[in-house]
Amino acid sequence: MHVLILGAAGMVGRKLTERLVADTTLGGQAIERLTLVDVIAPASPAGFPGEVETLEADLSSPETAPGLVAKRPDVVFHLAAIVSGEAEADFDKGYRINLDGTRYLFEAIRQEGLREPYRPRVVFTSSIAVFGAPFPERIGDEFFTTPLTSYGTQKAIGELLLADYSRRGFLDGIGIRLPTICIRPGKPNKAASGFFSNILREPLSGQEAVLPVSKDVRHWFASPRAAVGFLVHAATLDLTQLGWRRNLSMPGLSATVGEEIEALRRVAGEKAVKLIRDEPDSTIIGIVDGWARDFDTSRAAALGFKAESSMDAIITAHVEDELGGTIGG
Amino acid sequence: MHVLILGAAGMVGRKLTERLVADTTLGGQAIERLTLVDVIAPASPAGFPGEVETLEADLSSPETAPGLVAKRPDVVFHLAAIVSGEAEADFDKGYRINLDGTRYLFEAIRQEGLREPYRPRVVFTSSIAVFGAPFPERIGDEFFTTPLTSYGTQKAIGELLLADYSRRGFLDGIGIRLPTICIRPGKPNKAASGFFSNILREPLSGQEAVLPVSKDVRHWFASPRAAVGFLVHAATLDLTQLGWRRNLSMPGLSATVGEEIEALRRVAGEKAVKLIRDEPDSTIIGIVDGWARDFDTSRAAALGFKAESSMDAIITAHVEDELGGTIGG
Repeated sequence: MHVLILGAAGMVGRKLTERLVADTTLGGQAIERLTLVDVIAPASPAGFPGEVETLEADLSSPETAPGLVAKRPDVVFHLAAIVSGEAEADFDKGYRINLDGTRYLFEAIRQEGLREPYRPRVVFTSSIAVFGAPFPERIGDEFFTTPLTSYGTQKAIGELLLADYSRRGFLDGIGIRLPTICIRPGKPNKAASGFFSNILREPLSGQEAVLPVSKDVRHWFASPRAAVGFLVHAATLDLTQLGWRRNLSMPGLSATVGEEIEALRRVAGEKAVKLIRDEPDSTIIGIVDGWARDFDTSRAAALGFKAESSMDAIITAHVEDELGGTIGG
Repeated sequence: MHVLILGAAGMVGRKLTERLVADTTLGGQAIERLTLVDVIAPASPAGFPGEVETLEADLSSPETAPGLVAKRPDVVFHLAAIVSGEAEADFDKGYRINLDGTRYLFEAIRQEGLREPYRPRVVFTSSIAVFGAPFPERIGDEFFTTPLTSYGTQKAIGELLLADYSRRGFLDGIGIRLPTICIRPGKPNKAASGFFSNILREPLSGQEAVLPVSKDVRHWFASPRAAVGFLVHAATLDLTQLGWRRNLSMPGLSATVGEEIEALRRVAGEKAVKLIRDEPDSTIIGIVDGWARDFDTSRAAALGFKAESSMDAIITAHVEDELGGTIGG
C-alpha cells in the first residue's frame, strides 16, 4: 500500500507519519511506500522498512498535484493548509492554497482516473471553523456551515468539493472536522487559540503561562493522539456507511478553562497551577467569544471515531507522548 | 443608478428586465443605465429611456468579469448559470461556468475596489438544490447544505464565496434560494421538474399535458412574478439585518400535484383538468422523490420577502402575465 501525506511537516502530519511507521499497516494492509510532502521538506521517518520519498512542493502550483497523483497512492491524507490567521491576513494566499490547492488535488485524481480507473481514499482535514456564531450550545450533525473566517469558508468549500467528487465516483473521500488540538506540543505561538494548550503544556514543564480569558470560557478539544486516531480510522472505514454526507464533526471534549486548570491540579499539583498568570486580553476575549463550545457528534461516534472523555486523559496523553512520562521540567 | 444583469436572456432575467424598465426606479433611485449580459445577446428592452447595453459574453472566460465590473454598476444581479441537468452531464462545464464564473465575478469586483473604493450590491440566485435528501418534512433556516448534484454543490460554493466576500467588505451580497418556478412560461422542456408547470400551463392554453408522477407528490413553488419580486427586494434591502448570513431560502408555496390540479379545476374548470394525461415515468418518479417538499422560511419572511400563498394565486399570476387574462387557447 502506498500512502501520500500532504502537509506531512506539520504537527499532525508528523504524528500521523510516526503512527503509520509504528503500525506498519493501515486497514490490515502493509504500508510499502510513503510519500511525504510539504512546503518545507518533511523529515524522513526513522525505522520505516519500505520506500520513503520526502518532497518539498507547493500544492497551490497547478503542476504539483498531477505529479503526486501520477504515483497512484492508495490513500491520500490531505492536511495541507495555511492557518486561520494567515488566511485572514492574506486573502489571496488563503484562497490559493486552501481552495485552489485542494481543487487541484481532487481534479488531478479525477484526471488520473479518466486515464485509467483510479479511486483512492482521500482523508481531508476540515475544521470546526466551518461553523460561525451564533450557534446552539451544542452544534449538531445537521447544523449549517456559516463560517466567519476565510479559512472556515475555504474548508467548507473543500468539504463540498470532496462530497461531490466522491458522489461522482472520482475519489472515495471523507472530511473530518478536527476539534482544537490540545495539548499542542512545541512552543507557545501567537494563534488566538494557543492559550488553551499553553496553560497546560508550559506548567507541565515548569514554565509560566499566560491566561488571557476568564475561566468560564468553554471550548472543544481533542489530543494530538486522538486526532491521529481519527485520521487512521477515516482511512480504513467503509465509507458507504456515510452515504454522500462525507463530512463530519469529530468527537471531542467540551471543557472550560477552569476545568483544564482543575485537571492540571489533579495531574501535576498546585505548584503547576501557580505557574498560570491571569492577563486578560480583550482582543483574544473577543475572538474566542465567537467560537463553538460543544458538539453533538452522534454520527461520528456511531462510525467508531473516539476522543478523550476527560481533560485528565488529555493531559496524561501529553505527558506520555511528549514528556516521556515525566512532569516537571 | 447603473444595473448589471448577468444571465439577462434567461426567463427570470427577461422578466426582471421588464420589471425594472416598468418600475423606472430601484430602491427609490432612477435607473439610468442597464447592462444586460448573457451567452446569447439579450434583447434590448422596449421603452427604457436610459442607456442600455446588451452584450454577448461568457462569464467563464477570465477576461469577461473585469470588463463588466470596470463600468462600476451599482447593483449586479448574478443569474447566470447552467442548469442542473447540464451541470450533471458535463462536469467540467458546470464547474467552469457555475463556480469559476461566479468567482471571477466576485474577484473582479474586489480588484476594482482595490483600485478605487467600490462595493456594489450583488444579488446571487442560488437554489434549493443546495439541500439534499434525507431532510425533514420542512427544511428550516439552519439546516445544512448537502447537495446531491454538482449544480447544487456549485451553488452552495457560490453562497460561501458571496458571504466571505461580503464579510471582508469587497461587496454587499445576498444569495437567494429560489423555489421551483411555477408556472414556467414557454414550451414543455425536458427538465425533470417541467411537469409541475406543464400540467397547468398547457391546459390553460387548451393543450394536453403529461403527468409522470402520482398526485401526492409535494414540492415547493413560487411564480415568476414572485421570483422577480424577491430579486428586486434583495437589491434594495438593508443587508446589515442579515449579519454575515447572507444566503437564505425564499418563501414559497408547498403544494401537491393534486392541489395543483384542484386549483386548475377552480380557475379553469373540468375541461382543463381533462387535458392532463397520467403517464407514470419511473425515472422522473425517482428523481423527484429526492426533492425538498416544504420549507420554514421565517428569516426571509421577517425580512419582507413575499410569495404566493395559494396555487390559485400562482395560476392567476400566469393568466394575467402570460395569457393577457384569457384562459382557453
